[in-house]
Amino acid sequence: MPEAFRADGIDMRTRHRVEEIDAKRALVTVTDLEAGRTYTESYDQLLIATGARASPLKAAVSPTAPPTVQLRTLADADCIANMLIGVRKLVVLGGGYIGLEMAETARKLGLDVAVVEMASHVIPTFDEAVSKLVEEELRRNNVQLFTGSRVVELDSGHVVLDNGERIAADMVLVATGVRPSTTLATATGVKLGATGAIAVSHRMSTNVKRIYAAGDCAESRHVVSDRPVWMPLGDVANRHGRVAGTNMAGGNATFPGVLGTAIFRVFDLAVARTGLSHADASAAGLFPVSEMIKAPSRARYMSGSKTVHIHLTVDRLSGRLLGCQVVGADAVDKTIDTVAAAIWGKLTASDLLDLDLAYAPPFSPVFAPVQVAGEVLGKVTRTMRNELAATVMGYMF
Amino acid sequence: MPEAFRADGIDMRTRHRVEEIDAKRALVTVTDLEAGRTYTESYDQLLIATGARASPLKAAVSPTAPPTVQLRTLADADCIANMLIGVRKLVVLGGGYIGLEMAETARKLGLDVAVVEMASHVIPTFDEAVSKLVEEELRRNNVQLFTGSRVVELDSGHVVLDNGERIAADMVLVATGVRPSTTLATATGVKLGATGAIAVSHRMSTNVKRIYAAGDCAESRHVVSDRPVWMPLGDVANRHGRVAGTNMAGGNATFPGVLGTAIFRVFDLAVARTGLSHADASAAGLFPVSEMIKAPSRARYMSGSKTVHIHLTVDRLSGRLLGCQVVGADAVDKTIDTVAAAIWGKLTASDLLDLDLAYAPPFSPVFAPVQVAGEVLGKVTRTMRNELAATVMGYMF
Repeated sequence: MPEAFRADGIDMRTRHRVEEIDAKRALVTVTDLEAGRTYTESYDQLLIATGARASPLKAAVSPTAPPTVQLRTLADADCIANMLIGVRKLVVLGGGYIGLEMAETARKLGLDVAVVEMASHVIPTFDEAVSKLVEEELRRNNVQLFTGSRVVELDSGHVVLDNGERIAADMVLVATGVRPSTTLATATGVKLGATGAIAVSHRMSTNVKRIYAAGDCAESRHVVSDRPVWMPLGDVANRHGRVAGTNMAGGNATFPGVLGTAIFRVFDLAVARTGLSHADASAAGLFPVSEMIKAPSRARYMSGSKTVHIHLTVDRLSGRLLGCQVVGADAVDKTIDTVAAAIWGKLTASDLLDLDLAYAPPFSPVFAPVQVAGEVLGKVTRTMRNELAATVMGYMF
Repeated sequence: MPEAFRADGIDMRTRHRVEEIDAKRALVTVTDLEAGRTYTESYDQLLIATGARASPLKAAVSPTAPPTVQLRTLADADCIANMLIGVRKLVVLGGGYIGLEMAETARKLGLDVAVVEMASHVIPTFDEAVSKLVEEELRRNNVQLFTGSRVVELDSGHVVLDNGERIAADMVLVATGVRPSTTLATATGVKLGATGAIAVSHRMSTNVKRIYAAGDCAESRHVVSDRPVWMPLGDVANRHGRVAGTNMAGGNATFPGVLGTAIFRVFDLAVARTGLSHADASAAGLFPVSEMIKAPSRARYMSGSKTVHIHLTVDRLSGRLLGCQVVGADAVDKTIDTVAAAIWGKLTASDLLDLDLAYAPPFSPVFAPVQVAGEVLGKVTRTMRNELAATVMGYMF
């Protein structure tokens, strides 16, 4: 891998740790971990791409507790695969998508699996109506769920929850999320945003001259709320890097912002989101209205047609699309990408209904699920506008 | 079926033929074909939804010619299914999507199949680079192709082309397209547009008071070119009907226009389009530039990843999306719907690259195929803008 980079003229130094950045003199202090040697190196432009680290487990761990591992690196994955041999009861801490993907894998290996989630529902960045569908799918596949529960202790063969419940465990996987790695940045005077990640301009520059930041350690701007958000996702990191690299090399690129679009699979379902959740939108000071609809993914008489559940959030009065969440066994990625493009174009719920999408029975019903959602929210917002108009008229006359 | 409509309070009269419309007195003359009785009926609002009819075959047909049928109605389909018994060599006239779907079905039944297309390539509403991929798929599946060829004669056991070539045939299927059924409309003074279909307002009204038109007999407005077009497609007809019906019942609905989005399957490929082809865009007085790109549908290491071919057409200088055609064995419907939403939002090629789409290895590569196309066309249009700027500067100094 380092050889491949060297072939491209990139002097990649693995097993080297940056100890300190001296921004004034544009120097970094580096330790070569193999040679045990520390030296300084100058820079013209510096990129902080320190990524994220797994959130630490906050629980009392007894010496006889079951083996506990987290999944963050490929080495972690190899380690888990080896440790799973002989394990029958696995407890996953964290009901985010990493936790759920691990739960699924373990169930497919035949293990008993329990998932513990602190929030009131799994995948807590999704609205509850969507999470409920995911919880049904997990239960259907015999994954035990403990939501609204915090782990307080790992003792001999058990995970102990704050309500006193004890879950038998031969092994514990920690997937309680990640935090941005910012120690080096803050020590250098690089400012963090309210999210706790590094604050960056749309050119991915930090507050410190010649220092850029990109990837899981840096913030992004949300296209819908126009606020800084922290989105530690692979495709976002990739784009950050392209923008920062272009600017550091003398070019001029701007990061267009994110919608927080994401997708994952859990058993037979795909689960996806884009834009703001209802809760996000309210928190951002917007006035959202949301509805959950379901519709067939293809013409009803075609085999392979499955129910698509769409939770669509729009501005109450204008109908402007704010966000969407989709769950189903078919057409989930298509639906979410269509809505992502529609949000990017600042379209409304009624526009969704009007869209000329590709219809043919093997691919879609005459009205695609996303259009059914557009129609429902279009009606809701029209009603709200009419009620507002009636109220205003009531004051005027 | 008529009973179902009657249950909804709709007086449906099947086996009735309208002979004449008297628009001045708001009367129709109707023949009850079962009873052999002709009577008049008054109307407040009238909808012409006479659809389209199959284009007639223009060739000399000898009395000993192979049986020849066209596919337009469900009854035609039953008839063809019966006639196919004992047939070994089938010739399909017309290489549009109906002709190709019939060719595929016949190949799957084990027949020898030849397709004759007048234009230089099959699916002639698509740009040639896309048609070529479809032709390869047809040949791979042992469908014989005769493009740029017109049928002049059907004689004993053969189809004869204008170049003298003779194709052996036990049966001939005619799928040479459809024409709007407008005889009744024109006899009433209803005006046709340049496309030959009925000219309508955005409310689906015709030039004649109280007469509306909808479906395959009526024009639509193209959202990109802002010109009337004729799109005899099921989903367009459905939307026409909803708008016309709403207005005729005293409501107020407008037809938002079409992008000409369509999709069909041929063997292992899905083939789709939205917006204007390169040729359409030029004919509409626009200045298009197009590129063909290919990209994997999912992360390369995921099984199920297939090559997606995208032919993207944008405005040469602004980069505004004009149209897109997609061919592949995966993610074709997703790609085309994403572009359709993007065109609706008046996005550019660069916006396509910037879009925050749903990335996860089972669903998409980090950069979705549609984004690769956006990047390529974004670069092309930037180069063209720079060249134009250089030329202008050259004149100025």
